[in-house]
Amino acid sequence: MVIHNIAVIPGDGVGQEVVPESLKVLETLAEIHDGIKFEFTDFPWGCEYYLENGSMMPEHGMDNLKNFEQIFLGAVGDPRLVPDHISLWGLLIKIRRECEQVINLRPAKYIEGVKSPLANPKDFDFVIVRENSEGEYSEVGGTIHQGADEIAVQNAVFTRKAVERTVRYAFKLADSRNKKVTSATKSNGLIYSMPFWDKVFHEIGQEYTEINTETNHIDALSSFLVTKPASFDVIVGSNLFGDILTDIGAAIMGSIGIAPAANININGKYPSMFEPVHGSAPDIAGKEIANPIGQLWTAKMMLDHMGYDELGKLLLDTIEETIGAGVKTRDLGGTSSTREVVDEIVKRLKRRV
Amino acid sequence: MVIHNIAVIPGDGVGQEVVPESLKVLETLAEIHDGIKFEFTDFPWGCEYYLENGSMMPEHGMDNLKNFEQIFLGAVGDPRLVPDHISLWGLLIKIRRECEQVINLRPAKYIEGVKSPLANPKDFDFVIVRENSEGEYSEVGGTIHQGADEIAVQNAVFTRKAVERTVRYAFKLADSRNKKVTSATKSNGLIYSMPFWDKVFHEIGQEYTEINTETNHIDALSSFLVTKPASFDVIVGSNLFGDILTDIGAAIMGSIGIAPAANININGKYPSMFEPVHGSAPDIAGKEIANPIGQLWTAKMMLDHMGYDELGKLLLDTIEETIGAGVKTRDLGGTSSTREVVDEIVKRLKRRV
Ligand SMILES: CC(C)[C@H](C(=O)O)[C@@H](O)C(=O)O
Ligand SMILES: CC(C)[C@H](C(=O)O)[C@@H](O)C(=O)O
Repeated sequence: MVIHNIAVIPGDGVGQEVVPESLKVLETLAEIHDGIKFEFTDFPWGCEYYLENGSMMPEHGMDNLKNFEQIFLGAVGDPRLVPDHISLWGLLIKIRRECEQVINLRPAKYIEGVKSPLANPKDFDFVIVRENSEGEYSEVGGTIHQGADEIAVQNAVFTRKAVERTVRYAFKLADSRNKKVTSATKSNGLIYSMPFWDKVFHEIGQEYTEINTETNHIDALSSFLVTKPASFDVIVGSNLFGDILTDIGAAIMGSIGIAPAANININGKYPSMFEPVHGSAPDIAGKEIANPIGQLWTAKMMLDHMGYDELGKLLLDTIEETIGAGVKTRDLGGTSSTREVVDEIVKRLKRRV
Repeated sequence: MVIHNIAVIPGDGVGQEVVPESLKVLETLAEIHDGIKFEFTDFPWGCEYYLENGSMMPEHGMDNLKNFEQIFLGAVGDPRLVPDHISLWGLLIKIRRECEQVINLRPAKYIEGVKSPLANPKDFDFVIVRENSEGEYSEVGGTIHQGADEIAVQNAVFTRKAVERTVRYAFKLADSRNKKVTSATKSNGLIYSMPFWDKVFHEIGQEYTEINTETNHIDALSSFLVTKPASFDVIVGSNLFGDILTDIGAAIMGSIGIAPAANININGKYPSMFEPVHGSAPDIAGKEIANPIGQLWTAKMMLDHMGYDELGKLLLDTIEETIGAGVKTRDLGGTSSTREVVDEIVKRLKRRV
């Protein structure tokens, strides 16, 4: 019996609903697969924890977390309780940084039965590889002067090391897919960072001669995700550009509630973290209407990452089947509760045991 | 007779086709209106000029340009001939900066007869007010070290003066429209610049108590333009965020070929500049298939700006009528050439003389 130790952080808002439900599905999948077991350890960190303890996690929280194989996260943040920069930088971004989860991976795929806002969504299926450690999210900058003279400076720092590993990750991924990488740039406006990004992209591209490459400015690329999403395979972008593109990806899928994500530690030193694209959505939390699919698809990414590709595929097939059968939450035009969707998925999976 | 001196820069690619055609329409409009005349002065600046002269405009080009009432620009750039950072920073961005065109204004509106990529475009009608002088496009930054140690830094500088005037412009505009301003932020990731932006937005908002305000992160906002565009009235954003949002706006309108823009000098010291959202599109240049609507709608914005609102309205109505009658270029699903579309618009306008 192989035991996988998974740290579970439901976090805030709907995270507290969709995470526990998703664990049921993971347990069912472990039953299907011979000889594996998930051991889940719950960490009650989030905004409520902050209000009680004055920090988003305990002092040795990070050290503790680093001992786990993977981290399964719901959502972080509730600006009604704690300002975003405290909750996010004290938990979500802190883990991304300290666990060296330098790549953020976000697939977008047309799903039968999910109404896309696009008139003609065709069968798009792409993955966005987002730089996850620096760039526009560098914690470098500040403000000076007061009143009329006030100035704020935000510095975006791009290192060759980080850009290279991100771009390389994208090329490797494309090699296992449809052999095309599109790079997001803005070298015509951001004349220091983006020409550097482009140069590295071009250099690494030389090593992968069988992969088609394309470079689009972020403004055009954002619009292409709306006008011709089926033309993309792998898209690689900086921290901010990846953030924007992945939300557009989620939008064209028909609901932010189904989009998955993974924060990947590529050196194997620390756990990777699996969190959906959606946030904590405090407005719908507690109503049992949150869509569990984003969290479940994120669980699929965790299974893939752990080498259980067949389980991952089985889960995604079952998700698509369940949506196709009309068992879905309101955001997808259905009437089912969070739990009803999960129970249906568990039932369908159990038929296979 | 009031004579309006307009500097005309067709620029590169399709700019050389749609600008001269648009001048015909402006001349027709001057005939309709008693007592005005446009005097157009042509400036052949662009990438071909650069190849001959080694710069995008002559030495005293800017001084010359500053004497005109308005600037009517086609498109700049042709990366096959001149690298973008040279052509754009030597002409387009140079004029924006030196003529203190600190606001970039870009409407997006559902047009009957233009097929939107959205399944249900409804009647969206919003304007994006983009900061046009600094922010992420500050020419501040650089690179250091070589090879594996190379680092690029791009500094985004936000001054209170620039943020205030942009936000104030947005509130004033909303006051003449549907009384709602949505601010684009990313304060949860860009923790120095965006909290400052938010603070200024909040402060100015206090002065406009009758205007509804809303703040969205740029990732979510980009997706909302796809999922609920009809919910917006005025959107205000930084240079980069405005750039991205306006391209998405153009995308949901159904064609980048119809989206207009204006670079506004708000102190009246120098001319404003009117240029469509689309670029020079070298791939379709010279084929007489370029859509003139973006340039013409831009002309409408120039007319509005000059106080000829009725002419502006007449032009937009006639554009919509012409598209509705099926006289449109290929990108809109029609078969007409650039000139045929313009001739039809001129014909329809002349009926009114
Ligand atoms: C060409 C480029 C520098 C420009 C910009 O980003 O400002 C363009 O995209 C625009 O929106 O006018
Ligand atoms: C919450 C925020 C800091 C975060 C980000 O921008 O990285 C989120 O938008 C995401 O995409 O995971």
